[in-house]
Amino acid sequence: MKERIKKIFNNIKQKPNFIIIKNSDEPHIDENFFYVTGLDKGLFEGSCAILFPDGKIHLLVSELEEQSAKKANAEIFVYKNEKDFYDTLKKSISDNKNIGLNFKRITLKDFLKLKNNISDADFIDVSDAFSKARIIKDEYELDKIKKACKIVDRVVEKIPDLLSLEMPEFELAAEIDYLMQKNGADKQAFETISSFGKNSSEPHYSHGETKLRKGDFVLCDFGACYKKYNSDITRTFVFGKASSLQKEMYETVYNSQQMAFDKIKAGVKASDVHNSVNSFIEKTKFKGKFIHSTGHSLGLSVHDGEVRLSQNSNVQLQEGMVFTVEPGVYLPEIGGVRIEDDVLIKKEKVELLTKASRVFLEI
Amino acid sequence: MKERIKKIFNNIKQKPNFIIIKNSDEPHIDENFFYVTGLDKGLFEGSCAILFPDGKIHLLVSELEEQSAKKANAEIFVYKNEKDFYDTLKKSISDNKNIGLNFKRITLKDFLKLKNNISDADFIDVSDAFSKARIIKDEYELDKIKKACKIVDRVVEKIPDLLSLEMPEFELAAEIDYLMQKNGADKQAFETISSFGKNSSEPHYSHGETKLRKGDFVLCDFGACYKKYNSDITRTFVFGKASSLQKEMYETVYNSQQMAFDKIKAGVKASDVHNSVNSFIEKTKFKGKFIHSTGHSLGLSVHDGEVRLSQNSNVQLQEGMVFTVEPGVYLPEIGGVRIEDDVLIKKEKVELLTKASRVFLEI
Repeated sequence: MKERIKKIFNNIKQKPNFIIIKNSDEPHIDENFFYVTGLDKGLFEGSCAILFPDGKIHLLVSELEEQSAKKANAEIFVYKNEKDFYDTLKKSISDNKNIGLNFKRITLKDFLKLKNNISDADFIDVSDAFSKARIIKDEYELDKIKKACKIVDRVVEKIPDLLSLEMPEFELAAEIDYLMQKNGADKQAFETISSFGKNSSEPHYSHGETKLRKGDFVLCDFGACYKKYNSDITRTFVFGKASSLQKEMYETVYNSQQMAFDKIKAGVKASDVHNSVNSFIEKTKFKGKFIHSTGHSLGLSVHDGEVRLSQNSNVQLQEGMVFTVEPGVYLPEIGGVRIEDDVLIKKEKVELLTKASRVFLEI
Repeated sequence: MKERIKKIFNNIKQKPNFIIIKNSDEPHIDENFFYVTGLDKGLFEGSCAILFPDGKIHLLVSELEEQSAKKANAEIFVYKNEKDFYDTLKKSISDNKNIGLNFKRITLKDFLKLKNNISDADFIDVSDAFSKARIIKDEYELDKIKKACKIVDRVVEKIPDLLSLEMPEFELAAEIDYLMQKNGADKQAFETISSFGKNSSEPHYSHGETKLRKGDFVLCDFGACYKKYNSDITRTFVFGKASSLQKEMYETVYNSQQMAFDKIKAGVKASDVHNSVNSFIEKTKFKGKFIHSTGHSLGLSVHDGEVRLSQNSNVQLQEGMVFTVEPGVYLPEIGGVRIEDDVLIKKEKVELLTKASRVFLEI
């Protein structure tokens, strides 16, 4: 973990004396807290991590988290109340007043409290340094992501057997989540999307009481969270016999995803991946129906490091980055098709981390 | 929903011209977005709600959320990119520069962007106005909370049948989550705690690979999220024959919870509830082993409105508030017992919303 902290400091031009990570209440927790401590259990509401340039960490936690915190290689301080929290914090930082903060995660309230309690401090936004460190995964992280991917692969295989006429969407979501946990997921990476028919045309729909009918699209988008690391997969099926339009939608998305896989390797610009997928779809009858970016980085967060395979992303792909690749087309009156896999960027090619079949299935 | 917005404005002394709610990315979403819109589906990452004193709402959403947003009684604006977002926002707010913000949820980064884009604005922290509005539940909210409570009641009944020797903790968590979703939960309210033996002495432990052995405590703490509203319940069992110490722990916690139920009604101070529970436990051999507050308010968040039944809470209980009541005792070498139920404050008494049996069970 020391290496991770040094990497973060190395990403900052004007070096702060230390960096403070401050969690709010669930679910408003800064996932970097887990990145720097390596902890993979516990809530750590209100907790705080102080990072020093030599890789050392101080953790300020409530009594509730003391046991869990001990699993980290850090000096632990237990606080009783807010006054105690700031008194302890001030001791840790002594007279150093050049403080790095993750502006993207700390709430305005917590920031103002910090500012009031530490007079004359200069606060620097180090959010980019965190993103930059986290976008390249170390072996330890890849191991967890791969395990999270294996879990969803196993679940995808079972989906065709789960479907039955008149089944409501929420039941399929329950079965998917159950299978993920039985296969070792700690929890879902996000609320599972299980959408039937027209509902599949809303990319962020989750699930409801709509019942499965013959000819419906079945779009399942879900992820496993394993020791804080996430996978993210989407498969789309047709329940019963597919129309020629449905087949054409699937084929278009399938081919556009294959095009992305062929394109992706170290050195390529993120926007180039998206633009090639998009211009491929634009040339089909589904012009204008691909309404989101091609993918996002993945790790401790479902949108990790915040790099996207999108129109305006100038980031150059590098070895060790992990992305989703998830083109889709959406026709509001008919439904949507999305196929999503997780990939690791290698020097000369892409490595698929999710390996479940993408062959078109009429169930 | 208009009434809710007016209630929020009425809770503010220096009235702002409008209030802005700004979501970050998942899971850093301001739950007040759902409170004011009544929306119960959708992610709404990056979305923004502008509230006007007459109860009117403007919603700024990305194309991805357009369909979901239409279900709200609001004027919808779809933005394409960040520049477009702020241009649209500025049109909505015209020349009014007295802006209410939820300092407890907006990130420092989002705040600084707002500030840069809206020159000469005065920003007021209205987080307390949101909490104050949300702490008293309306009928529409109570209906959802009651449904979320019914779901966990049904699951509690099934737990004894699920347990078997050598079962790992994560499997029990999977079964609990599955049953919640099969019974209508959209998702877990939080990561389910299923802890065996010594692990039950860590209040925030979730679950791992520890296997169930004879004589273990089995502590299950879980909640259902139903249309964005949460329930939260804990039951503790003994697998096999309980020791006399285990029985004594259970009896102490059971009696202390009953004491809280007897005490709770409108007009009582939140701290008085906690102090009576705590001083009861302090007089037993488990002195010093009750290491958290007696309860927290519950609703759209698991810790809703942020009022606690704790030592320093001066809040007076009022009709329509919903709390958890969850005393516990924790012995690191043996395990922990916690019993938790959700209650609605009434004029002269408490109404239990979770109704599952609390009778001590050796399974």
